[in-house]
Amino acid sequence: MSGSIYGKNFRISTWGESHGKGYGVVIDGCPAGLAIDEGQIQAYLKRRKPGQTKYSTPRKEDDKVSILSGVFEGKTTGTPISLVVFNENQRSSDYSDIASYYRPGHADYTYDSKYGFRDYRGGGRSSGRETISRVAAGAIAASILNELGISVYAYTKSIGPVTIDYQNCRKEYSLNSTLSMPDPDATKRAEEYILEKQNENDSVGGVIECIATGMPPGIGQPVFDKLDAALAKAVMSIGAVKGVEIGDGFLVATRTGSENNDPFAYDKNNQLTKLTNHAGGILGGITDGSEIILRAAIKPTASIGRPQRTANKYNENIEIQIVGRHDPIIVPRAVVVVESMVAITLVDYLFQGMTSRMDRIKNFYKK
Amino acid sequence: MSGSIYGKNFRISTWGESHGKGYGVVIDGCPAGLAIDEGQIQAYLKRRKPGQTKYSTPRKEDDKVSILSGVFEGKTTGTPISLVVFNENQRSSDYSDIASYYRPGHADYTYDSKYGFRDYRGGGRSSGRETISRVAAGAIAASILNELGISVYAYTKSIGPVTIDYQNCRKEYSLNSTLSMPDPDATKRAEEYILEKQNENDSVGGVIECIATGMPPGIGQPVFDKLDAALAKAVMSIGAVKGVEIGDGFLVATRTGSENNDPFAYDKNNQLTKLTNHAGGILGGITDGSEIILRAAIKPTASIGRPQRTANKYNENIEIQIVGRHDPIIVPRAVVVVESMVAITLVDYLFQGMTSRMDRIKNFYKK
Amino acid sequence: MSGSIYGKNFRISTWGESHGKGYGVVIDGCPAGLAIDEGQIQAYLKRRKPGQTKYSTPRKEDDKVSILSGVFEGKTTGTPISLVVFNENQRSSDYSDIASYYRPGHADYTYDSKYGFRDYRGGGRSSGRETISRVAAGAIAASILNELGISVYAYTKSIGPVTIDYQNCRKEYSLNSTLSMPDPDATKRAEEYILEKQNENDSVGGVIECIATGMPPGIGQPVFDKLDAALAKAVMSIGAVKGVEIGDGFLVATRTGSENNDPFAYDKNNQLTKLTNHAGGILGGITDGSEIILRAAIKPTASIGRPQRTANKYNENIEIQIVGRHDPIIVPRAVVVVESMVAITLVDYLFQGMTSRMDRIKNFYKK
Amino acid sequence: MSGSIYGKNFRISTWGESHGKGYGVVIDGCPAGLAIDEGQIQAYLKRRKPGQTKYSTPRKEDDKVSILSGVFEGKTTGTPISLVVFNENQRSSDYSDIASYYRPGHADYTYDSKYGFRDYRGGGRSSGRETISRVAAGAIAASILNELGISVYAYTKSIGPVTIDYQNCRKEYSLNSTLSMPDPDATKRAEEYILEKQNENDSVGGVIECIATGMPPGIGQPVFDKLDAALAKAVMSIGAVKGVEIGDGFLVATRTGSENNDPFAYDKNNQLTKLTNHAGGILGGITDGSEIILRAAIKPTASIGRPQRTANKYNENIEIQIVGRHDPIIVPRAVVVVESMVAITLVDYLFQGMTSRMDRIKNFYKK
Repeated sequence: MSGSIYGKNFRISTWGESHGKGYGVVIDGCPAGLAIDEGQIQAYLKRRKPGQTKYSTPRKEDDKVSILSGVFEGKTTGTPISLVVFNENQRSSDYSDIASYYRPGHADYTYDSKYGFRDYRGGGRSSGRETISRVAAGAIAASILNELGISVYAYTKSIGPVTIDYQNCRKEYSLNSTLSMPDPDATKRAEEYILEKQNENDSVGGVIECIATGMPPGIGQPVFDKLDAALAKAVMSIGAVKGVEIGDGFLVATRTGSENNDPFAYDKNNQLTKLTNHAGGILGGITDGSEIILRAAIKPTASIGRPQRTANKYNENIEIQIVGRHDPIIVPRAVVVVESMVAITLVDYLFQGMTSRMDRIKNFYKK
Repeated sequence: MSGSIYGKNFRISTWGESHGKGYGVVIDGCPAGLAIDEGQIQAYLKRRKPGQTKYSTPRKEDDKVSILSGVFEGKTTGTPISLVVFNENQRSSDYSDIASYYRPGHADYTYDSKYGFRDYRGGGRSSGRETISRVAAGAIAASILNELGISVYAYTKSIGPVTIDYQNCRKEYSLNSTLSMPDPDATKRAEEYILEKQNENDSVGGVIECIATGMPPGIGQPVFDKLDAALAKAVMSIGAVKGVEIGDGFLVATRTGSENNDPFAYDKNNQLTKLTNHAGGILGGITDGSEIILRAAIKPTASIGRPQRTANKYNENIEIQIVGRHDPIIVPRAVVVVESMVAITLVDYLFQGMTSRMDRIKNFYKK
Repeated sequence: MSGSIYGKNFRISTWGESHGKGYGVVIDGCPAGLAIDEGQIQAYLKRRKPGQTKYSTPRKEDDKVSILSGVFEGKTTGTPISLVVFNENQRSSDYSDIASYYRPGHADYTYDSKYGFRDYRGGGRSSGRETISRVAAGAIAASILNELGISVYAYTKSIGPVTIDYQNCRKEYSLNSTLSMPDPDATKRAEEYILEKQNENDSVGGVIECIATGMPPGIGQPVFDKLDAALAKAVMSIGAVKGVEIGDGFLVATRTGSENNDPFAYDKNNQLTKLTNHAGGILGGITDGSEIILRAAIKPTASIGRPQRTANKYNENIEIQIVGRHDPIIVPRAVVVVESMVAITLVDYLFQGMTSRMDRIKNFYKK
Repeated sequence: MSGSIYGKNFRISTWGESHGKGYGVVIDGCPAGLAIDEGQIQAYLKRRKPGQTKYSTPRKEDDKVSILSGVFEGKTTGTPISLVVFNENQRSSDYSDIASYYRPGHADYTYDSKYGFRDYRGGGRSSGRETISRVAAGAIAASILNELGISVYAYTKSIGPVTIDYQNCRKEYSLNSTLSMPDPDATKRAEEYILEKQNENDSVGGVIECIATGMPPGIGQPVFDKLDAALAKAVMSIGAVKGVEIGDGFLVATRTGSENNDPFAYDKNNQLTKLTNHAGGILGGITDGSEIILRAAIKPTASIGRPQRTANKYNENIEIQIVGRHDPIIVPRAVVVVESMVAITLVDYLFQGMTSRMDRIKNFYKK
């Protein structure tokens, strides 16, 4: 089997390694007639770029994207869109030690178990740089959603002990914040916390919240392909994610039915709404027209400067110390990755949703 | 699109409605030569049966399973296995009121939005009885895992405020406990909590933990089809689940790298192990040989006896009161459903895992 | 892997064996709101029924279909439709000899090779009765096509040396002809040929032609999922089919470009048409608005009364004589099977075709 | 939906246009540890290169392949292999006339119908150059087959009226023949025929036969995913193919059962074989251990120099004359494309075939 292809009606196929020639994605199933250019995709990629803050890894990559196919005279043709970002910085440092041992928290051992050996340079295929392909595709998915009046917005909800409430935050700030945390005070406290742990040669985790606005009701599938199930997979597939919640998530375990049920009501425009949104916009796997809300728990960066115990492939227990400067936190750069995976999934489901009713299919083919 | 087919190399296709003729599942991709009989499947189904405790719904269904195809002389033939459970109790009570309004916390409105109308009798396809098909298939997946020395065990970790620690619990107790909670004291406290809320015409939620033992290292896929991502989808697709965690889950957000990383070490048999298991047995989407650990948050039953505000399809805001006796808690009956979805997913991934190395493929076809 | 699930956006999952409990199909992805009843499906099944002519096998099966799910108040609900035909006649005769040897032209040996053993009763899963599931699903696909103004019609084009030309034949006759050959004279000659071979304890083959009318232009996919490629797979998957052609098929090998190219021209209504249709309605894998035309070569029935050389599983070369009465020809009963596979495929592609243009998607979601 | 992704357990995703940046393929599911290099792939690509004979198009493309990912130290890593061939010759000539009318026999009109517009330069995605991606992937599939002792060989069986018999031909000659026709006399006659038609500004078709040797028995799937059905789709998806046959193909329509059935027999080594191979190596969709034999009918090149009637998008019926020099025959260059599609399909099915028996799965995971 495979592992690097995602989606049903909007499908992406990704490739690339940290120290190979580059990263890419082929998008098969993008409709014809969508205006896209490299600038749009570049803007998305910029949000996951390393080297933007004092904390983040100083690898200076421009991550410049090229469109290799599927676009003609500024519009998608409906055939596969191939996007590529060539690695600029592929000179391997000396990786001979990494080649022989298994870094804690990394996929070194599991890749060796599965494949018999691995491309050890910078994590190979398991490097966080793999998300370049996701974000490039996410930019195109976001353009499609934009045409349909749908937007996806994610932000840093918490870093270590510092948590913010979405109700009090401003989206504009988030896009310009180094931590993607739309609350200046919280950002300051989070920065202090990161710095403290970084000084201890340690790293920190956090939570990302993602909100999709404008989804029509009735999108999703029953049983196995519930939209929330698909979103859970999409987001859990991002390297450092260890948990996914929809709506109130784990809180529901301590709630009662009367607290958790969202009453339906017509508003003054005779539009059906819900008075609360504990469900996070999805009931029975299908959108109810409210905002879709999900959260992802991001683990602290596995690469830390402290000495760590581990094992090597020569059957020895050893102590290692990972050199080089590493991001003490993944969260802010993962925000646009979560947005991308959600956007890609929503597009796929909107496309799937066009065939649920015979009357609408008849109407479609009448024209 | 569809929604009721799951899996790649081990695929199940389910059907059925609460008040239709019955429920069924077709399993395509079960290997030949596996001994199975209806008794095994029935034993699994018994664990999700209603009417077993004082709390649970009194609908007395025997849920008797029949094997319609794919088994010859007691062994699977390798061709599709069709299993069916006919509904015994399909006389509809009067559902005319349910037909016209949208129950809070249920999929009534979203099904209407998607399909234009719905089978409103007992929730139709969105009924919890849909899990019969999952559990019937889960029994067969568990048999396959058993042949490979792998076991999957789930239990009730918390109900409302009552939480237990797996380290202190006994599996044997769990299977015989009405709450599937392998700690008699906690069970007693949970029972009191449920009773209290039931007397208030309310319902409660909880958390299920699932542990898979014996999985070889190296099973899973990189990038989108990470094993943890697949498990998240599998479990989130169960009706009442609102959150899924792997290993330490949301706790990682407040941990540091040095706390969260699991050191590798050879044990005295020269077997590579991890000294801790914060990762829950999966690194980079691939098993590391440790126990796989996941948790699911289950919402309180949506059907409660209290008066609730909602809307009907005639553009009116109304107050409703759902009659009949309903389970005040879904958790204990969902335990075997979680086990089933995990077992089905692990089988699928074990099958996928056979083609990752050229040397092993050569060896396979040499014989 | 599996083998018994077909389709992407309109998916069917089939099960059953010749001497098991019955045959069935689960259809996942049928849109909601389509009127269907068992009578419609039964009418389709009647066309593949055995025992209707003097030549065909006398097994008297009523093949009565039941709808087990997915239909409410006479309309599809959009959730899986489960159809079942229970076998009436499942008393096994003595199959002990068939169990030990490999019938020429049958799948006995290949099933044993693949699965290690087989359900040998009447061919098990490889029996021609497997097409019951295809035809039941085909009836529903045909209903969907009918709503969209599309019809699929197949007929017996040749039997042994007797061939007819579609231009001279009448569809009405075909549906009432025992050979589905819409030319009474040719039918008479074909009957004589069949009788002659049957008297020699032998069997005969033929060709089925299938024509789909009313398909809009623009349906299909580029590259691997060309519509003609999908149709070739769909039809070649029917047991006895050994060749599939689109349009002029193998004739093109001896044609020149100037003979084979179909000129485009506007007709008097300013409608774009083709002046000829050598291409069979598909160019570059996508419909051009002309009739879709395909042909399938059907091999002579493998079961014949003559003594035949073969081998058994005890490493012996033996001579066998297959007892019982067998259809000397499969062709007429396969006509509705070809229609069904084509109809199912066209529905799948019409559904896929709804997402090829951004402007149409926007328009769809505007409503 | 998509159209440019193929396979289940060995999956390829292709992209590119005739006058875009280039062509590529991403292979997901190639096992780790296979030795590959660009030279091997280049050798395959050379066989489909234009400009090699006096007949073929003089476009001088080197079609130089680069491996962008998935290979480390000369071996596949098990993660996606990205291959790219950049177009050297992308200066568009003046295509303004082609942009406005529909060439007979081409996909111009159908692409416009599906997508609303098209990349008209050189056929865009529907160009025959799309097969570069197939052949690059085919080279890797052939390497895998080679490791398993399986070979796939195709050759030109007929060109117009000139047909050869495989039994009399030598494979070595074929690889060095400009027409891939392993019979020097027939080649000479075919050359004369081509020249004659070329002088008339016309083009010719032919038949390709493909033979796979060394496939173990038991590979394939029942019902819809029969191996012959999959091969039919794979080969019919190649641009100019209008018909596919397995074994005796359309001849079976005029054969009797006693002529068509292949008797099984043990040979002197006690190996089960078939005394004849009318079935072409597949029974019931599963290999029987004999050679797999298939044939594809290739239409004459659609681009011819003669004046042709057609229509333009301004509702006018016009006469056109396609300028430039075009291959008067596609057949010889399509030979390696057929080989590639067959090789890719066989690899996919060999991988699928590893999970059909419980005992073999147990054995696999024991090690």
